[in-house]
Amino acid sequence: MQGNLCIRWSLEPPKRAAELKFFLEDPANFEIIAAAFNQSSRFGRLQSIKCAIAGKNLYTRFFCSTGDAMGMNMVSKGTQHVLEFLQNEFPDMDVIGISGNYCSDKKPATVNRIDGRGKSVVCEAIITEEVVKKVLKTEVAALVGLNMLKNLVGSAMAGALGGFNAHASNIVSAIYLATGQDPAQNVESSHCITMMEAINDGKDLHISVTMPSIEVGTVGGGTQLASQSACLNLLGVKETNRELPGANARQLATIAAGSVLAGELSLMSAICAGQLVKSHMKYNRSNKDVSKA
Amino acid sequence: MQGNLCIRWSLEPPKRAAELKFFLEDPANFEIIAAAFNQSSRFGRLQSIKCAIAGKNLYTRFFCSTGDAMGMNMVSKGTQHVLEFLQNEFPDMDVIGISGNYCSDKKPATVNRIDGRGKSVVCEAIITEEVVKKVLKTEVAALVGLNMLKNLVGSAMAGALGGFNAHASNIVSAIYLATGQDPAQNVESSHCITMMEAINDGKDLHISVTMPSIEVGTVGGGTQLASQSACLNLLGVKETNRELPGANARQLATIAAGSVLAGELSLMSAICAGQLVKSHMKYNRSNKDVSKA
Amino acid sequence: MQGNLCIRWSLEPPKRAAELKFFLEDPANFEIIAAAFNQSSRFGRLQSIKCAIAGKNLYTRFFCSTGDAMGMNMVSKGTQHVLEFLQNEFPDMDVIGISGNYCSDKKPATVNRIDGRGKSVVCEAIITEEVVKKVLKTEVAALVGLNMLKNLVGSAMAGALGGFNAHASNIVSAIYLATGQDPAQNVESSHCITMMEAINDGKDLHISVTMPSIEVGTVGGGTQLASQSACLNLLGVKETNRELPGANARQLATIAAGSVLAGELSLMSAICAGQLVKSHMKYNRSNKDVSKA
Amino acid sequence: MQGNLCIRWSLEPPKRAAELKFFLEDPANFEIIAAAFNQSSRFGRLQSIKCAIAGKNLYTRFFCSTGDAMGMNMVSKGTQHVLEFLQNEFPDMDVIGISGNYCSDKKPATVNRIDGRGKSVVCEAIITEEVVKKVLKTEVAALVGLNMLKNLVGSAMAGALGGFNAHASNIVSAIYLATGQDPAQNVESSHCITMMEAINDGKDLHISVTMPSIEVGTVGGGTQLASQSACLNLLGVKETNRELPGANARQLATIAAGSVLAGELSLMSAICAGQLVKSHMKYNRSNKDVSKA
Repeated sequence: MQGNLCIRWSLEPPKRAAELKFFLEDPANFEIIAAAFNQSSRFGRLQSIKCAIAGKNLYTRFFCSTGDAMGMNMVSKGTQHVLEFLQNEFPDMDVIGISGNYCSDKKPATVNRIDGRGKSVVCEAIITEEVVKKVLKTEVAALVGLNMLKNLVGSAMAGALGGFNAHASNIVSAIYLATGQDPAQNVESSHCITMMEAINDGKDLHISVTMPSIEVGTVGGGTQLASQSACLNLLGVKETNRELPGANARQLATIAAGSVLAGELSLMSAICAGQLVKSHMKYNRSNKDVSKA
Repeated sequence: MQGNLCIRWSLEPPKRAAELKFFLEDPANFEIIAAAFNQSSRFGRLQSIKCAIAGKNLYTRFFCSTGDAMGMNMVSKGTQHVLEFLQNEFPDMDVIGISGNYCSDKKPATVNRIDGRGKSVVCEAIITEEVVKKVLKTEVAALVGLNMLKNLVGSAMAGALGGFNAHASNIVSAIYLATGQDPAQNVESSHCITMMEAINDGKDLHISVTMPSIEVGTVGGGTQLASQSACLNLLGVKETNRELPGANARQLATIAAGSVLAGELSLMSAICAGQLVKSHMKYNRSNKDVSKA
Repeated sequence: MQGNLCIRWSLEPPKRAAELKFFLEDPANFEIIAAAFNQSSRFGRLQSIKCAIAGKNLYTRFFCSTGDAMGMNMVSKGTQHVLEFLQNEFPDMDVIGISGNYCSDKKPATVNRIDGRGKSVVCEAIITEEVVKKVLKTEVAALVGLNMLKNLVGSAMAGALGGFNAHASNIVSAIYLATGQDPAQNVESSHCITMMEAINDGKDLHISVTMPSIEVGTVGGGTQLASQSACLNLLGVKETNRELPGANARQLATIAAGSVLAGELSLMSAICAGQLVKSHMKYNRSNKDVSKA
Repeated sequence: MQGNLCIRWSLEPPKRAAELKFFLEDPANFEIIAAAFNQSSRFGRLQSIKCAIAGKNLYTRFFCSTGDAMGMNMVSKGTQHVLEFLQNEFPDMDVIGISGNYCSDKKPATVNRIDGRGKSVVCEAIITEEVVKKVLKTEVAALVGLNMLKNLVGSAMAGALGGFNAHASNIVSAIYLATGQDPAQNVESSHCITMMEAINDGKDLHISVTMPSIEVGTVGGGTQLASQSACLNLLGVKETNRELPGANARQLATIAAGSVLAGELSLMSAICAGQLVKSHMKYNRSNKDVSKA
């Protein structure tokens, strides 16, 4: 998980902002900064720091492992401790805010794709010609063509930063609500590039989803609510993994990506087969049979 | 609400794609295309069509009023009818899919900010010096400075397309869950530019939120579930507005934007006052006192 | 060509900004606004106006035909005249600037792709299997694969808004310098999506370049310099086209797009054939043989 | 300077792509990879490697110091050597291309802002009240307000990724042509965030430009042409700096950023003072007096 700080100076700004940047990025100082950061939690461990200057302002991005927690609060606390430490070293600095949008939390931002946020997952599958034809009712070539024109070119035409997929957001939202995650983080957690290509001489389909910023936890937050806790239990990823802290959260991120892959395959096939509108009419919540059930 | 089609040709592609574009954009043809579109629903009314060509492929974006429904299904049905009509006029065209990501649904895409999607709302307020100091525990100048460095420059540094705000996504998600909206549409519905400036000789604060693509409805979908229906009732926007269809959905979008404004004011003040971490610790779900209540 | 204004209010801002937006977009007012705009030039003719509100500020984008001129100054003058007209109708408005970056000139901005700027051109070609093999020394499948992984997915990974191509900028820059265009407009004029696909049962290659915002003119600016004028003459597009004003500029934009297509084909083939580095070493300006010639 | 590779696998793709990523990012392997890279040039020195996976494809970005050369060819050669080395270690990999657009060269891409490309420069100045009034003919408050509404909010409204400035591209283009740089790199070299604020109790102006990806060199390429060479000489940055290789190129980048700052100040003041159109008419190339001179 990533948190950030925005710091500035009133006097001698450029020199001091650059000095702090070099200080934070100097490997020789990492241990002491990490010590300050890590005191706030048993699981939060500082991994690295990235700095960006804009004018006389310094934006910092703290990368930190957070065990099986999503970790946003853990990072905020750690960042606050680093801040207190820095104020001793650079007493002339002026803290603008403990969050400067360079994290970037709950906003669609490229920094999350370039440097990751939460878990970065790639999931792939090979779907045989038979399944594509009999189950998905379409053709490999049709899926590959639609993926290029819709998920790659269509999104590029729409200026869709990070949204090179069909409907990752639907699946991520559903899983987040079911497992007690923060649904507002769906914004960046559903960043996804869906790729499809024909393999084995054009017979079978290779599909992958690349999701750089899935923010999940299996402990804390909404994970302790009754239904959500039951759901995590069902998935075998409840609470902290005792043998390998962090393994449960990673597993949940993998489940999310795998489900997105399935969702992409399903919707793309429905569009190829011309069934999109029909399916929505049939399974619509407004439909009486469905509301009865 | 907006839907879209992706169409292409195998033969004579450039000429035919351009011909279809000119056909769809010719005011002389609007009435007949609208007639095809409008037959699918009592409320869905085609407003305009936008076309974009990429190579030999035509992407079309249908703008349509949808009464008090969010309207995604209404648009899909209308688009399908236009498609059937077009296949008579342009029998050589090849329909790639009824959704080509140029809509753009559940992806962070600039087209939604440039041309709008769902409702476009601007909401503003003047907060007096007294309230800023006594209630928000901060200063006008501090808020204005933080807004520039965090919401404008910080987001620009992070490559945050559409995310020039502090946490619009939190508020939009909460309202969407409470009122039966589609939480997966939070991705683009939470696009927001938050602006702050000092007015009245620097004494008072002017704050505004500009939200170009709030997708809401007060009828259909999850709005008929028990709690969600009760919540809409409480807000006085349940079902279709009989006197002015669409007025309820517009009112709900306005409520969402107003709530986002309040949320921005609250979080930004907490950051200015250095209370962000403290508040999260106090009101954390993991906190026992809270889970008891 | 497009120009823009940024206008705001101190008093009653939301109502007045919205009122001006509705005034500018009302078809009933178009004629009188166009009359004000058009008085500044023999060729500049207002086509439409697009408005966007952010808080209490109104951004307007004027679309205007400009004959064979690139037309930036023509648009600025016309906009200034509209401004003077509006100040009579809305005397309480406060003009922030005659350019509010919503044009958007010399910045990479999605608005230029969504709504176009200058000329929007699509250019395509079919390259036979024989030419791909004998001249380009590569295979159709290799080119199609590289285009997807480099120009579509690679650019998406890099957050390349508008830059879904290999090196359009090289060709646009060269043509702009040779024909007296503004090389600083290369930023948005080189926006390009390059698409490739196998056709005729995978034997031949279909390639297209889609360029939404090529800003060129054949009269005014640097077009009258000696070499640049000679070059335009050579291309048969010098000065204003007497029979169909604007046809020369459109032809020049087409030439630019065609050259970009050729450049894309050449570089992509070189990469497929593994010749990129070798070619750069051979034709490098630093190479003595070249500097002699 | 940064170069990149795109590599993929046909068999066991996910495991192998991830294995190569871990291999390239393992500090234990850096020395041997750097040795392969560095053999191609006296000045090119590998600094770090960044990897990104999309599906079964690996994109790598090589950061390298290049002395006083812009260094694109140097990086390409080094990358080619790394490639040859890797093919021994990972014989089953399939090289898609020596450039996968993740560099990202001559395209407007966020990766260049997030991780830098070429030189990253911040330049600032304090302009006293007197100069703002007497020389620039405007007011500090007007400049600060225009900067927020035009360069920050206006660009955000336009979806201007990286273009949070008034006209950096004009100045960068001019300097690149004058000093023998590659004008096609203007696309990303003109990425710039311009910031302005009132300081000293609102009396004076603080202005800064932050430019993350200025690509320049003082040796090689067009720098050896007669006029361009003379111009570099005039600036005192011709050829390789013998005492501190790289210092000349860094100085040229600093000159570019300083010139952009002056250009921003000039244009922004002209807009505030309402002189934009008038100045363009006066100094237009089409104006006879100017063409005579």
